[in-house]
Amino acid sequence: MANSMYEYVKAFEQPDVLLPNTWIVVRIDGRGFHKFSAKYAFEKPNDRRALDLMNAAAKAVLADLPDIVIAYGISDEYSFVFHRSCALFERRSSKLITTIVSTFTAHFVHQWSNFFPDQPLSVPLPSFDGRAVLYPTVQNLRDYMSWRQVDCHINNLYNTTFWALIQQGGVDAKEAEKELAGSLAADKNEILFSRFKVNYNNEPEIYKKGSIVLRDYELVEPGTASETLDEDSAKTVEQLVLSKTHEERDRKRRAKARVTVLHVDIIKDEFWERRPWLLSNKPGKIPKEP
Amino acid sequence: MANSMYEYVKAFEQPDVLLPNTWIVVRIDGRGFHKFSAKYAFEKPNDRRALDLMNAAAKAVLADLPDIVIAYGISDEYSFVFHRSCALFERRSSKLITTIVSTFTAHFVHQWSNFFPDQPLSVPLPSFDGRAVLYPTVQNLRDYMSWRQVDCHINNLYNTTFWALIQQGGVDAKEAEKELAGSLAADKNEILFSRFKVNYNNEPEIYKKGSIVLRDYELVEPGTASETLDEDSAKTVEQLVLSKTHEERDRKRRAKARVTVLHVDIIKDEFWERRPWLLSNKPGKIPKEP
Amino acid sequence: MANSMYEYVKAFEQPDVLLPNTWIVVRIDGRGFHKFSAKYAFEKPNDRRALDLMNAAAKAVLADLPDIVIAYGISDEYSFVFHRSCALFERRSSKLITTIVSTFTAHFVHQWSNFFPDQPLSVPLPSFDGRAVLYPTVQNLRDYMSWRQVDCHINNLYNTTFWALIQQGGVDAKEAEKELAGSLAADKNEILFSRFKVNYNNEPEIYKKGSIVLRDYELVEPGTASETLDEDSAKTVEQLVLSKTHEERDRKRRAKARVTVLHVDIIKDEFWERRPWLLSNKPGKIPKEP
Amino acid sequence: MANSMYEYVKAFEQPDVLLPNTWIVVRIDGRGFHKFSAKYAFEKPNDRRALDLMNAAAKAVLADLPDIVIAYGISDEYSFVFHRSCALFERRSSKLITTIVSTFTAHFVHQWSNFFPDQPLSVPLPSFDGRAVLYPTVQNLRDYMSWRQVDCHINNLYNTTFWALIQQGGVDAKEAEKELAGSLAADKNEILFSRFKVNYNNEPEIYKKGSIVLRDYELVEPGTASETLDEDSAKTVEQLVLSKTHEERDRKRRAKARVTVLHVDIIKDEFWERRPWLLSNKPGKIPKEP
Repeated sequence: MANSMYEYVKAFEQPDVLLPNTWIVVRIDGRGFHKFSAKYAFEKPNDRRALDLMNAAAKAVLADLPDIVIAYGISDEYSFVFHRSCALFERRSSKLITTIVSTFTAHFVHQWSNFFPDQPLSVPLPSFDGRAVLYPTVQNLRDYMSWRQVDCHINNLYNTTFWALIQQGGVDAKEAEKELAGSLAADKNEILFSRFKVNYNNEPEIYKKGSIVLRDYELVEPGTASETLDEDSAKTVEQLVLSKTHEERDRKRRAKARVTVLHVDIIKDEFWERRPWLLSNKPGKIPKEP
Repeated sequence: MANSMYEYVKAFEQPDVLLPNTWIVVRIDGRGFHKFSAKYAFEKPNDRRALDLMNAAAKAVLADLPDIVIAYGISDEYSFVFHRSCALFERRSSKLITTIVSTFTAHFVHQWSNFFPDQPLSVPLPSFDGRAVLYPTVQNLRDYMSWRQVDCHINNLYNTTFWALIQQGGVDAKEAEKELAGSLAADKNEILFSRFKVNYNNEPEIYKKGSIVLRDYELVEPGTASETLDEDSAKTVEQLVLSKTHEERDRKRRAKARVTVLHVDIIKDEFWERRPWLLSNKPGKIPKEP
Repeated sequence: MANSMYEYVKAFEQPDVLLPNTWIVVRIDGRGFHKFSAKYAFEKPNDRRALDLMNAAAKAVLADLPDIVIAYGISDEYSFVFHRSCALFERRSSKLITTIVSTFTAHFVHQWSNFFPDQPLSVPLPSFDGRAVLYPTVQNLRDYMSWRQVDCHINNLYNTTFWALIQQGGVDAKEAEKELAGSLAADKNEILFSRFKVNYNNEPEIYKKGSIVLRDYELVEPGTASETLDEDSAKTVEQLVLSKTHEERDRKRRAKARVTVLHVDIIKDEFWERRPWLLSNKPGKIPKEP
Repeated sequence: MANSMYEYVKAFEQPDVLLPNTWIVVRIDGRGFHKFSAKYAFEKPNDRRALDLMNAAAKAVLADLPDIVIAYGISDEYSFVFHRSCALFERRSSKLITTIVSTFTAHFVHQWSNFFPDQPLSVPLPSFDGRAVLYPTVQNLRDYMSWRQVDCHINNLYNTTFWALIQQGGVDAKEAEKELAGSLAADKNEILFSRFKVNYNNEPEIYKKGSIVLRDYELVEPGTASETLDEDSAKTVEQLVLSKTHEERDRKRRAKARVTVLHVDIIKDEFWERRPWLLSNKPGKIPKEP
């Protein structure tokens, strides 16, 4: 076959399989979203429509890829977490990141007009880049999630104050920046409250906490989870075989679960204790319809 | 700052810079396009609207990323070639592949309705995955391109015959497959000609040759190129500095050039000799308007 | 400086930092030791001098690199384990594996004449290759160690029987191989006992269990360890800083500890429970001189 | 088999195959040789015995690994070059670097007493670390080699002057350093000549040029090489098959060739033109015995 003469070029493909038994976080970011948000006149400090569109796209990614256990989004970035036992695409990094980025982009573009009905998209279209990072332990993973949520808080407090100074305080960007340089959280809270009658605590949770996307199972009473979280639970061959037999059942439960969006604290233990399925990867109970 | 407590998680990000001075090929593929093409009733063996949409998306990628010198598409796959001197995103693999996949997907979804006006997209939306492969020499790169174009030819001849047997010959897929098992190119040409009056040579070039996307400069008479192709031309520091000064001028010329689609032979030398800018990365002359 | 013209070549060096917070196992193997052992007429099935030399070289490696917490050797292979918190050479894979291989080789060659006084080394000299493997959890690491020790047992039982058949049974290698094909452990034990009066259980521990190299601290009563093993114990910044201040003290304790060789079971929990310093990386108590 | 329960740990081994069709340079460096050279009172600025020992070890590496086409050494470092077509160990990085480092170390330790008969080695023994770097083109490779030889020249001129100031000029290290700070090559030549009657040009070539280790074939008249150097010469399948049949013949010729050490310029074209076998990997003619 004539083709065989050229087929040697396949030998230049190099493997990029991610280390087994580690948590895979794929974080994607909007490309040039500073410019993009200006073009479509996003509201400041937060544009609810844009965040809702981001969340809609993230929900579609979770619905498409059941191996993702949780996702967390702020501003124009989203982090998707594959469970440490994930074997999707043989854990090939390129496949995982491009599939997420492509699926997310497809939904962002496709659903755009639902959220921005009066502003049709034009070139350059919105796009996202992404990368994978591995975390070997639950603590590392939770610290990653905490890092993003603390970042959300810090940025939102700053932006809320910054834009209050401009929009209500009548100063320009330079002055606002100067005023906030070196300020502490308490200072910003004070500016908001004393000058603009804004109690930061009353700001919408979506802005203060970011968005968590996950499958919706019945919450568990802390301390009652039947199985303690064990980093190494399913690592022996017997257990892997056992879990193989449960896999099909789990897949069905996951498919039945509703993908939902929350705006809550993910730093404290409670969030994780009440949702043991996130770390165990064993689907919980589907909540009964009211 | 409270955040610093969690910031250590950034240390888990690992570099993925691609080896300098090698050709970067990013190949993307439609995910589950067998099912997708059935859902939207793509014509067989080739759906012109789908190919035109693929090409439109590829053109948009080239327009967006001037570091891409050429792209080649067949069916639901596209290969994008970054010049060996490319420094975009510091040659980070994740950034390069996700940016291409995301930009391509955005345009595929956004322009869908131009090519399939009567079939609105619905979930699951089309998506693509991708990967990067490095080729150290021009010969390796050209062999890669030849490999894809030979593949195009082999697949198209097979599919053309296969679907002629079904659509005109009235057999089912199983019988068609059986009839073609072990057949040579000559056999398929003969089936097409004697049974269906189809001269394969007269089939549209887009199906036989695939699609080449590139910037449109004036063709060069073979043998007259002022500079011989030198693998190593711009690798010394002096030359790199020199080329730095030309870079801005080159960027402008590239931006002015029209991105165009061809369906021609890329295996023979002629294609490359008449377009020395592909391998030299020095933009050619912008053709005069007629 | 004239050199700068060529210094761009440094940009081709690619990072190879190993994922943080994972156990690093560097396994080295003798190159061509089948031939090598024939050349120096190693005794079969086990050559005590060769094993003692391997162990002497391994002890020297541990003495040189305090970041190694334990090593395990069988036949011509040795596995060295760096603690998950290891930051030696910034965890660069090449540095870690070449340093171990080089130090081991240096001692193997230098101490050769102590163990083989009548057989001077000649070209080709003994050499070793090596590689690094990462294990994210304690369970994975212990399973790796168990894997090697089970391998030791399986190989030694086979070899002991195989060579008994040849050396005492008077058959040739082919016949011995044939006799053992498909045999179970019980079969081999039976052959040894009934035909050669060998009770395998009484074979030297070094052959049955392999060799464990570690720093010698006072054993701990199981269940009394003051700190439970926590995969994630020292992962927050505060704790890392805290451990920084303890580091110097720990370094001194490690330097004082004697590196010793054991031939015991490392599969059961007891081995690890009585030596909590292996997994915690906190040096134990130096045993009092008798 | 009991072992299978643990064998899953093998899945954590990750591939490290080096990109095909690129030049592989493995550079090794003495670990802590500043201290080591003080311990054994190496002569300054150059210790001929130490360099001869380095060269003897490098020759042994080349004799052991015919895939290495050339090596270059200065001070306590050595660079070994595998031809771009090298397939040794399937181009696995770990195997290649550890094999070189181990073989080099074995010979360095074993031959030590030939070069330092009055100074037996003692702990800590000499050891080396190493790493692999890939170069896609001949120009990149030659620039790497030039970089090392320019470095040799710069360091040697500096060290020769520095130690002349101390040993003959009677100043201390601090003063010598101060005097040379910011000095040009011409300044150092002048100091050597006017103050110490040393004509740097007459210094031994081994110090000024470093050491080149290669297989000794008959030199070729520049311009008469029957085959032009083609980066891509043997990259098509036909040619690879062809070269397969020549491989055995080539292997024998390489084995017959004497490995030799030179101290000559490797920056200019002449060195490479007269030894076309270095870049083509086709063994030259074995020189006739005189």
